[in-house]
Amino acid sequence: MTSSPAKRLVVVGAGPGGFEAALTGAAAGLDVVLIERGKLGGTCLNWGCIPTKHLLAATLAVEGLAAQAKQKLASGTVTVDLAAVQAKKKKLLAATHSAMAATLKKAGIRLVTGNLAGVAPGVAQVAAGTDTEDIPFDALILALGSRAAAFPGVKPDGQAVLGVAPVLDFTTPPESLIIVGAGAIGLEITTIYHRLGTKVTMVDAAPRLAPAEDPDVSKVVAQIMRRLGVDARPGAKVESLVTEDGRAKLTLAGGEVLTAEKALVAIGRFAPTVVPGLAECGAVFADPSPNRAWIKTGDTLQTAPGIYAVGDCNGRVLLAHAAASQGVYAARHAAGQTSAPYAPGPIPGCYYGAPEIMRVGAIAAPGDLISEAAFVANPIAQAHADTAGFARVVWKDGKVAGITAVGHGASTMGTLATVIVSQAWTREQAEALVFPHPGLDETLKAALLGEVKAKA
Amino acid sequence: MTSSPAKRLVVVGAGPGGFEAALTGAAAGLDVVLIERGKLGGTCLNWGCIPTKHLLAATLAVEGLAAQAKQKLASGTVTVDLAAVQAKKKKLLAATHSAMAATLKKAGIRLVTGNLAGVAPGVAQVAAGTDTEDIPFDALILALGSRAAAFPGVKPDGQAVLGVAPVLDFTTPPESLIIVGAGAIGLEITTIYHRLGTKVTMVDAAPRLAPAEDPDVSKVVAQIMRRLGVDARPGAKVESLVTEDGRAKLTLAGGEVLTAEKALVAIGRFAPTVVPGLAECGAVFADPSPNRAWIKTGDTLQTAPGIYAVGDCNGRVLLAHAAASQGVYAARHAAGQTSAPYAPGPIPGCYYGAPEIMRVGAIAAPGDLISEAAFVANPIAQAHADTAGFARVVWKDGKVAGITAVGHGASTMGTLATVIVSQAWTREQAEALVFPHPGLDETLKAALLGEVKAKA
Repeated sequence: MTSSPAKRLVVVGAGPGGFEAALTGAAAGLDVVLIERGKLGGTCLNWGCIPTKHLLAATLAVEGLAAQAKQKLASGTVTVDLAAVQAKKKKLLAATHSAMAATLKKAGIRLVTGNLAGVAPGVAQVAAGTDTEDIPFDALILALGSRAAAFPGVKPDGQAVLGVAPVLDFTTPPESLIIVGAGAIGLEITTIYHRLGTKVTMVDAAPRLAPAEDPDVSKVVAQIMRRLGVDARPGAKVESLVTEDGRAKLTLAGGEVLTAEKALVAIGRFAPTVVPGLAECGAVFADPSPNRAWIKTGDTLQTAPGIYAVGDCNGRVLLAHAAASQGVYAARHAAGQTSAPYAPGPIPGCYYGAPEIMRVGAIAAPGDLISEAAFVANPIAQAHADTAGFARVVWKDGKVAGITAVGHGASTMGTLATVIVSQAWTREQAEALVFPHPGLDETLKAALLGEVKAKA
Repeated sequence: MTSSPAKRLVVVGAGPGGFEAALTGAAAGLDVVLIERGKLGGTCLNWGCIPTKHLLAATLAVEGLAAQAKQKLASGTVTVDLAAVQAKKKKLLAATHSAMAATLKKAGIRLVTGNLAGVAPGVAQVAAGTDTEDIPFDALILALGSRAAAFPGVKPDGQAVLGVAPVLDFTTPPESLIIVGAGAIGLEITTIYHRLGTKVTMVDAAPRLAPAEDPDVSKVVAQIMRRLGVDARPGAKVESLVTEDGRAKLTLAGGEVLTAEKALVAIGRFAPTVVPGLAECGAVFADPSPNRAWIKTGDTLQTAPGIYAVGDCNGRVLLAHAAASQGVYAARHAAGQTSAPYAPGPIPGCYYGAPEIMRVGAIAAPGDLISEAAFVANPIAQAHADTAGFARVVWKDGKVAGITAVGHGASTMGTLATVIVSQAWTREQAEALVFPHPGLDETLKAALLGEVKAKA
């Protein structure tokens, strides 16, 4: 770190990491410049967490009705006006952009619209059109985000093969949609368009859906996909994905060909483009190849003295709340408010599609001690006719080391689970807490108090 | 308490308190007899928490569609088949009864069906039809529950004026329904039947809806009732409520007369009927009048040596999870596993209607230090087009002493809020926790980190 606290802080990127860094820096008395080339809010607000939640909520009644109708408890139709939903989404995002701009202004932060063209020691160069500006800094916080991954033969072509942003902006649902990638993004978008009547086919080269999660979570996801009638194909290697005659044409490794009106590529995230001059300032990268050039950071989130990298661009945890937490820390560290290493505790991760998934801390490996409970006995899950799934606890030395849940409303347990894992609860602590009845959380309680056994 | 641990435990009442007491006693090695006159599960399972949740969930898509339709985001109809929902509810309750009976059997607990006819030192007398049986005990745990309150002129007559149980069993929604009582039960049943198309009129003598909660919560409830088109009348004193010509006829103190197809009396709970011989065994009561004869208990939930009272019947907290917690404690105490006073920490309470309400710990009084945040800025609430309400934190000596929330999904914060209040978090603890984004809990985070000010 710099030997004396920074006075001039430059933050690059106004996503969750950069925005919080700028506000924290200003609150700490620093002179803050925030550089953003596009919209305030980054991927999360504009093409990620938030628009997907709008579309999931706007289509929820379709699934609620379907679940009740399947049990012959209700009948009817719910027709979502996707164009109207998109118009409302735009309005809400615009309102959020305005609110964020006002917050920055109120905090005395200078917002510069432009591209980070290069970095030299103590100077960030911003380009906007043909203009450039050198902005001096004592500390620099890079919150550059990440890019949607693509590979030769599997990348958006702007015709029928698309990235996340245009798919989240559809104003009429496509008749059919191929989704490549069965991670959080692929699963949430599957849920949205399935509810809107689109015939969805999901493929992933990984041997199971939600491949980053507990294998038993993947089984529940597969079960829900079958129930919904989604053609989900884990273990399917894509040979090529192209637009042909205006439609998306997917060729699988075995030769099978699938076509659809549109296709979405959601196969992960690449590191952001390397900033000219950054390496020369001392920054280090995880890997020299351009797509894997995540900015490597140390204990204090610095990649070089006075140069911090927060959020996606450091490749630690690609989640908005992780970015925000790192942004706050980096700004405090730059301002001399803390010198302790960055230690945020466990970071929760949620999927908000059908089914919802929540995980914090360790995933159970074979031989790990676990306890669990199924949602089938939960009265709230029963009432919603949506009882698939479970909560599972991983124990280490008699303390909670990880919690995973999949099923109705599992995402609502995220904060509670984070507290329990971060405090490494014992069984006795769980026993002593009075959980409100009835609640989905009671399945987590049952898991915490369940028989502890070694995972097969 | 008895000088040596009990061997023979008799538990009376198989609601949440008695059921947990019996299982805990059996697990501790006691010889347990459980006496129940009716159905396993008590009020909670049969006529309270659980059936209301089934009906709320079964009708949720109606409200989801209505919220989206109001913003012209969706159109359609959802018609709930109430008879089918009731049939499913019965099936689920029957399955739960069977599962509970199997659990008791597996634990070696003898279940006796009958009425507690009287108590003498060391003996409980059970009557079933014309048979009676004397069951000896070393310790007795009374989990007698409570009765629906009624007053002369305002009580169910079994015709058009009804108690909760028959209203929760309707197989066709009434065209109109008067609900007397704007507490948790009245509000949840208002939500259910409003969604089913019933014209609901709600009256309460208290000056505001949800009178046990923060007055600002009542304002949000009133706002939602207006939005839904429910005729809610706090401050309306009922003079009489009778069946006339097959319809419910309500006369208010001012002389105004309202009629409806049916009326529900949900004006609170009375103590259970006093058990013959209980006073002679040394039990004490909160008040000699029959309706207020809550069984008074000391630090260890005993009302007399070896005689415990848990759950509603002791008048402490009329909530299922409080009863269960007390039942576990009493059985452990009787078995000699604990001698510490009963200290469960804060007990959360939730309302699951529209809007949801959650509260744990202190309610803010004028002059108290509070901080708060509104749901209007929460992206999940925005996505659901349901942004009324707020979360509020009450601070004492720099620590959280109470949390209240009202609004979309507020009940899902119940367990988390209970942890925070029971651990008396500081602002720094809240700041250090990474909340998953986006989530309703983030409004609680914003409240915890909000500006602290004295309540007006």
